[in-house]
Amino acid sequence: MTDEDAMKHAIAVCREGIRRGQSPFGAAIVKEGLIVAATHNTVRSHNDPTAHAEVNVLRAASRVLATFDLTGCTLYTTCEPCPMCLAASHWAHVDRVVFGAAISDADRAGFREMPVPADELAAMGKCELKLTGKVLRDECSRLFHEWKAAGNGTPY
Amino acid sequence: MTDEDAMKHAIAVCREGIRRGQSPFGAAIVKEGLIVAATHNTVRSHNDPTAHAEVNVLRAASRVLATFDLTGCTLYTTCEPCPMCLAASHWAHVDRVVFGAAISDADRAGFREMPVPADELAAMGKCELKLTGKVLRDECSRLFHEWKAAGNGTPY
Repeated sequence: MTDEDAMKHAIAVCREGIRRGQSPFGAAIVKEGLIVAATHNTVRSHNDPTAHAEVNVLRAASRVLATFDLTGCTLYTTCEPCPMCLAASHWAHVDRVVFGAAISDADRAGFREMPVPADELAAMGKCELKLTGKVLRDECSRLFHEWKAAGNGTPY
Repeated sequence: MTDEDAMKHAIAVCREGIRRGQSPFGAAIVKEGLIVAATHNTVRSHNDPTAHAEVNVLRAASRVLATFDLTGCTLYTTCEPCPMCLAASHWAHVDRVVFGAAISDADRAGFREMPVPADELAAMGKCELKLTGKVLRDECSRLFHEWKAAGNGTPY
């Protein structure tokens, strides 16, 4: 499975989230070429400020694999991880984090983002995970417009 | 309720976690002088890499208050929040985060901490929350020794 193939799964669950009135973020976790889990943001439906797509998918993959050590896994996310999600990936020991849109895209869509680039925080935090950005960035950025056009959500 | 009073609740749930074989971190959330929720780290018991005490208590308080907006709340935690937990506090809109021990204390106990001080990340992230550290720091630091003495956990 290529990075683009895996990102398409993250995009698909993001769109499912938009249909459900959730915020426009999706994520998937891949291990040995297989999707382990794929989920969208559920901050609104679960009244959970930590329920970003990445946190949700790390929790889901840990349940599926019955371990909190996700060594060997890659996390795909439609948007550059915020500090919460990057640090969650560090704690989960994922090998790589691959993202599409940038934090600045989410910021422009109205989300109250912390302006901390993932690569800067990873360097400061001496994280061992590898970061790859801009995978299907245009399609991932368009998700914010699709979400606004759907008219069933507001940023937080 | 003073900061010290509230921190004692976080310390009490931390000790409960140690008794249960969990990692030595506790947290409590206070609103208008009342404890809304108090929980310990459950990374091991729940196989959840994101289940730090702070994330758990933010989720619990959001359930109790039926909102993901914890404006007006203060988060008390026995240890300086890691980037995941500080950013979770930002997303939850808590007014203040009050901590006891320092990240360096957790690091010395063997946890794979990101060496990112909470105040630095809060400044970089333009977070509006207020941070207060070193509240009952000695007692909070001793929790790491109590945990080691209990002999029922290893750091991750």
